[in-house]
Amino acid sequence: MNDIYLDNATTTRVDPWVLEEMKPYFTEEFAAPTGHFGHQASLDAKEKLEEARAVIAQSVNADPEEIIFTSGGTEANNLAIQGLIRTRKEKSHIVTTAIEQESVLNTFKALEKEDRIELSYVGVDSDGRIKMDVLKKALRDDTALCSVHLVNHEVGTIQPVAEIGKICAQKGVPFHVDAVNGWGHVPFNVRDMSVSLAALTAHKMHGPKGVGVLYRRKGVKVKSLMYGGYNEFELRPGMENVPGIIGMARAISMVKPEHTQTVAGLRNKMWNTINSKIPWVHLNGSVENGAPHILNVTFDYIEGESILLHLDMEGIAAATGSACFSKALEASYVLLAMGRPHEQAHGSMRFSFSRFNTSEEIEKTIEVLTRIVTDLRKLSPLTPEED
Amino acid sequence: MNDIYLDNATTTRVDPWVLEEMKPYFTEEFAAPTGHFGHQASLDAKEKLEEARAVIAQSVNADPEEIIFTSGGTEANNLAIQGLIRTRKEKSHIVTTAIEQESVLNTFKALEKEDRIELSYVGVDSDGRIKMDVLKKALRDDTALCSVHLVNHEVGTIQPVAEIGKICAQKGVPFHVDAVNGWGHVPFNVRDMSVSLAALTAHKMHGPKGVGVLYRRKGVKVKSLMYGGYNEFELRPGMENVPGIIGMARAISMVKPEHTQTVAGLRNKMWNTINSKIPWVHLNGSVENGAPHILNVTFDYIEGESILLHLDMEGIAAATGSACFSKALEASYVLLAMGRPHEQAHGSMRFSFSRFNTSEEIEKTIEVLTRIVTDLRKLSPLTPEED
Repeated sequence: MNDIYLDNATTTRVDPWVLEEMKPYFTEEFAAPTGHFGHQASLDAKEKLEEARAVIAQSVNADPEEIIFTSGGTEANNLAIQGLIRTRKEKSHIVTTAIEQESVLNTFKALEKEDRIELSYVGVDSDGRIKMDVLKKALRDDTALCSVHLVNHEVGTIQPVAEIGKICAQKGVPFHVDAVNGWGHVPFNVRDMSVSLAALTAHKMHGPKGVGVLYRRKGVKVKSLMYGGYNEFELRPGMENVPGIIGMARAISMVKPEHTQTVAGLRNKMWNTINSKIPWVHLNGSVENGAPHILNVTFDYIEGESILLHLDMEGIAAATGSACFSKALEASYVLLAMGRPHEQAHGSMRFSFSRFNTSEEIEKTIEVLTRIVTDLRKLSPLTPEED
Repeated sequence: MNDIYLDNATTTRVDPWVLEEMKPYFTEEFAAPTGHFGHQASLDAKEKLEEARAVIAQSVNADPEEIIFTSGGTEANNLAIQGLIRTRKEKSHIVTTAIEQESVLNTFKALEKEDRIELSYVGVDSDGRIKMDVLKKALRDDTALCSVHLVNHEVGTIQPVAEIGKICAQKGVPFHVDAVNGWGHVPFNVRDMSVSLAALTAHKMHGPKGVGVLYRRKGVKVKSLMYGGYNEFELRPGMENVPGIIGMARAISMVKPEHTQTVAGLRNKMWNTINSKIPWVHLNGSVENGAPHILNVTFDYIEGESILLHLDMEGIAAATGSACFSKALEASYVLLAMGRPHEQAHGSMRFSFSRFNTSEEIEKTIEVLTRIVTDLRKLSPLTPEED
């Protein structure tokens, strides 16, 4: 494990209090929450499951019966998108962006390949915000779905989801939001934002891995991807991950405005210091329109991979571009879509923060980073003479 | 929670040692196991994930690259069956039994409804064992899949999987085994049994809920049900449930022959005492061909639901028929397929045991059960005069 972990947009530490809450459901209250005709243990488990459902529903202003537990964000996105398309016989028109996370992007690509859908990609501006005028024109009377993420996984840009939801509602177009990278970090209110379908996950906000949520507004038709028992409103069979669900509910309950302030403070401190101390840097995304926990920076003339490697050798965990997305050293598709030149899309670093990070960790990281960037630039033939 | 838990075929207590093993992966070693271009924390997580994969592979005599982690047995069965059918353009012929668990049964029913498959059901004998002569005749040259469970979820009958596998191999028919109710309880060896695809789950053998395995023999083509990242051999995207997977590996490692003996001893004691002390009882399934942890008994003239309810009021958790399968009070489809008359299929109780049960618990249960059955029969108009 690294000493300093700044890769919280990939996954986070489970809060020790979350784990405490989960523990009894492994070894004591372990029965299956199969409500009907069950014994007391299963009725108790069902009650706890429904309490967790209510907590999670409330966190996004949904009704409990609109919350469907899944194995995570990827399954929730797949169930939302594939599940909706499965209810339609005709070929469906879909509006989305080119900077969705892979579980949305690749689901659309697969459906496109099967000739089930026709895709319209709406471009983003240099901050990664969707172009609203282009979106308005892209939505057709026969559009089956508009799908836009809440927070970009790579640069942290917050999309104008309320505004998009309003337009979709006016047009009668179902609106899907991949909120995996935003839930617990930025406001998300499915009613106010006119959301039809949304994906949530626990492990990006100090809950456990292996559990997530599909929010499905009442009346929105979705077909199950799997078959088995009739639980989760007949949309998701399989034994419920009770400890995981209870952990997720606890994790979202623990999110406090102070955390967001702390995390944003760490990000701002990091960017301000980098920007003042290190030459030839670019912020990717926006501090004003950005999620508090994500900072994406390009360091000109050197590669993100090299910085990552050197940081890692000094015990600091961060991420670079979207390399984890591809198996090859490809430039970030998010940054390319934001209009960055290829070199810049290759040299980006993502630092992502949590309430478990400290100000001292940020100072240490900046100190190490400054040294690494300086050293790597000395070796790079691209670096200009100091002016 | 009930005082005495005899519903271990539904789900089991996580062994406290399994939870101990999992704990650090929640709060300390929590990084994502994304191997390529990762920092040290993610490389460490990947290493632990692969260690768990090797342990699980060994437990069924598979190679590690044949083990695909899923969210549970239901997903594994769906991925095996739907995933295989998705690779085929033509309508596929499938051979199975009428007593599969619902995640297999309902997946086939859904594919049949979509006109993607033609189903041949092979009958079972009065013990619930598949009729081998009928199976042999049912397999055609163009059969796309033969699917038979390892242990029946309701009556505990062990199917002759090695024999079926041999016949399928000779015919060149892929062979899928739902081993969810057998793994960790009875021998399961994918090589010796010529298995092509198998589903495993952790939570029925003292591992955590929310995690399972698809075994896929090298060369067997399966298409992913979900899209996203390229992990799990491009067959199952989504953040790996690291603590769950590590818990599953620990759980299967902890299974010892002594446990099986202890559990079989509890079952035998229970059946022998019931059989000698309570009149008008029938064993459903077989003690010789049965899994050690499952006992299914019909008590004539009274309903399983009533027994369940009265046991529950005295703190004893058991299960009845397959009521948890349906939402209505339906007779068990498993017992009906075994040729039981409707009344008997309605009055069955399933007691299922684990290494955490004690001999004293069984004695207490028999004492309570004897009283309940006697009392209920006094109220039943069906009960004959004592002879």
